[in-house]
Amino acid sequence: MDNENKKKICILGSTGSIGTQALEVIGAHPDLFEAYVLTAGRNADLLISQARRFQPAAVVIADETKYAEVREALADLPVQVYCGEEALCQVCQMEPVDVVLTALVGFAGLRPTVAAIKARKTIALANKETLVVAGELVTRLCLENRVAVLPVDSEHSAIFQSLMGEEDNAIEKIILTASGGPFRTFSPEQMQTVTAAQALRHPNWDMGAKITIDSASMMNKGFEVIEARWLFDVEPERIQVVVHPQSILHSAVEFEDGAVVGQMGMPDMKIPIQLALSYPKRLKSDFPRVDWYRLGQMTFEEPDLKRFPCLAQAYRAIAMGGGAPCVLNAANEVVNLAFREGRCRFLQMADVISECLSRMPRLDAPTLEDYLALDRDTRQLATSLL
Amino acid sequence: MDNENKKKICILGSTGSIGTQALEVIGAHPDLFEAYVLTAGRNADLLISQARRFQPAAVVIADETKYAEVREALADLPVQVYCGEEALCQVCQMEPVDVVLTALVGFAGLRPTVAAIKARKTIALANKETLVVAGELVTRLCLENRVAVLPVDSEHSAIFQSLMGEEDNAIEKIILTASGGPFRTFSPEQMQTVTAAQALRHPNWDMGAKITIDSASMMNKGFEVIEARWLFDVEPERIQVVVHPQSILHSAVEFEDGAVVGQMGMPDMKIPIQLALSYPKRLKSDFPRVDWYRLGQMTFEEPDLKRFPCLAQAYRAIAMGGGAPCVLNAANEVVNLAFREGRCRFLQMADVISECLSRMPRLDAPTLEDYLALDRDTRQLATSLL
Repeated sequence: MDNENKKKICILGSTGSIGTQALEVIGAHPDLFEAYVLTAGRNADLLISQARRFQPAAVVIADETKYAEVREALADLPVQVYCGEEALCQVCQMEPVDVVLTALVGFAGLRPTVAAIKARKTIALANKETLVVAGELVTRLCLENRVAVLPVDSEHSAIFQSLMGEEDNAIEKIILTASGGPFRTFSPEQMQTVTAAQALRHPNWDMGAKITIDSASMMNKGFEVIEARWLFDVEPERIQVVVHPQSILHSAVEFEDGAVVGQMGMPDMKIPIQLALSYPKRLKSDFPRVDWYRLGQMTFEEPDLKRFPCLAQAYRAIAMGGGAPCVLNAANEVVNLAFREGRCRFLQMADVISECLSRMPRLDAPTLEDYLALDRDTRQLATSLL
Repeated sequence: MDNENKKKICILGSTGSIGTQALEVIGAHPDLFEAYVLTAGRNADLLISQARRFQPAAVVIADETKYAEVREALADLPVQVYCGEEALCQVCQMEPVDVVLTALVGFAGLRPTVAAIKARKTIALANKETLVVAGELVTRLCLENRVAVLPVDSEHSAIFQSLMGEEDNAIEKIILTASGGPFRTFSPEQMQTVTAAQALRHPNWDMGAKITIDSASMMNKGFEVIEARWLFDVEPERIQVVVHPQSILHSAVEFEDGAVVGQMGMPDMKIPIQLALSYPKRLKSDFPRVDWYRLGQMTFEEPDLKRFPCLAQAYRAIAMGGGAPCVLNAANEVVNLAFREGRCRFLQMADVISECLSRMPRLDAPTLEDYLALDRDTRQLATSLL
């Protein structure tokens, strides 16, 4: 495959956990993929070394104070250097880009994703908050622009894989598995005093800090219910969260005949990342394999909404609809950071989120501008409640 | 859908476990399916009542001594009544038949299946011995006649479902699950004295007597390795038997990227039977669903070839190739019946099979006539060894 035929990838968030693993995949298949755009928030050092290795056409450093540093470090290379939030939207739309991998964290992913959809780029979606906040709007834009969204979240990739070849068959139920996180077996008393350091020790998955805290609170699973609802056009009532501590069954689909098709594997994000880039082909890999003779057991249990009140708040926001999931996400971003910085207790997070859901105005069919305002106002309220 | 557009099904073995369940599926979807031909070995009473209910165009009773009884009982209906082995081959080839469901037990399925393939009928394959005995020949005939084989065995249906939409992706490994049968946890001493009554109490699956004994000895799993090899064009070394006592994961496929896709469900043959008839559509059903909150656990372990020497003999026959699997099957049919009739001990079965594999002549690329002769001669030898 010559250079012209390589898939040109724009990675939004190339210095994070998903971004660095995506570059490993691209580096392993230089004949198939080209890292055409790399972007980072603040990690200038890593962005510079990535740019030196992969020689993308463009890089963006969102933090404008790091702009000069990045530009000078790459002055000898034919790499365009941009900075600021607006540049993220522009690089997504560069004509040669085929696939935009949205690996930004949080609400910040929404505007660049919308820009990429409007430019009719295939979306490899790792930024789940985009669909949590504005699933209705984003789904409509994808339909209007005939844009494919390929999920990168391991659960949604598993559902996507389970649906391959089943396009004409109705989904009866989605079985969305959850590891249960590090506090799965903790008593309510123990959970009162857990620290960020404890929460960051996830038993199975090696991920960024924000999502690891969301996993510990199970807010992440609530987000994934919302994400699945939009990605697969399924009513939330048909999405069953099942705690499966070994994280081998990554999720599954039950069809109308009673058959359940699921995707399994070791907990390793590289499989879903690679598939989102290579789809519909799978590429040979040396990623770790399941050893069926040593696996022992897979167990399954019901999530406990009492001990994981963030998941209960997510269900509440789903039922409220409209702008409520945007409020849920904004409040969660505030308390998640506060918990990591020691300014909020673990169980207090759900209380703040609950208060925000109760007090913020309810919006039906919000526009992008409505979401931006609702996000901003909710952050103010959540901050004031801490 | 008018009568002309219904799928016309010929059920070889309509009075057995698979056949009766297939008729339940057909009865539940009279708008989609028509039982066009029904055949039975000796069970005239059930064949007559099935024919009265489903009014097929033709029935066959293989046992010629029952012919008059069946013919008289159906004299008032426009049902053609035939008898004898040869008639089985003829009804498969009737022009209106769309799908032949081969639910005969044992070697007896081979000739009618070959006849159906030559008449270019879609094969819904429940008679695994056909592929065990003559997989190379049958596979070649299917290719030459461009005939689709839709597996009905739960494991092979699971593999087939896991491969839907993955036509361009290479199989790295097939994970073929096995319940382990009723003697999975028995000591070698306990296994010396087990009876047919014990072997017929299968923990999960409700099946015919012959296959239930094959499950208890794990010969059934050896047969399924051979069946999978031909159905999915995979080297036997890439097929891993994994004991999974709960029979929820019905089998799975590992692809080259490390992802494993598998099909799960309650142990109920109606799902694979229905899918083989309705493919590529799935039909809504009220078959039992997996209850993920009550399932508890799935466990996995390596099969013990020492305690299950029949499985070891199957691997030996695979390695020998040529006519050896035909010898394996013929010897097994003899000892399976002898065990059920109290004329052979449980662990003696493998000894007789081993002796037959050692003593029968080795044939390369056998013809149908070679298989018929090899089957007959092996049965004589096995009977003399008892």
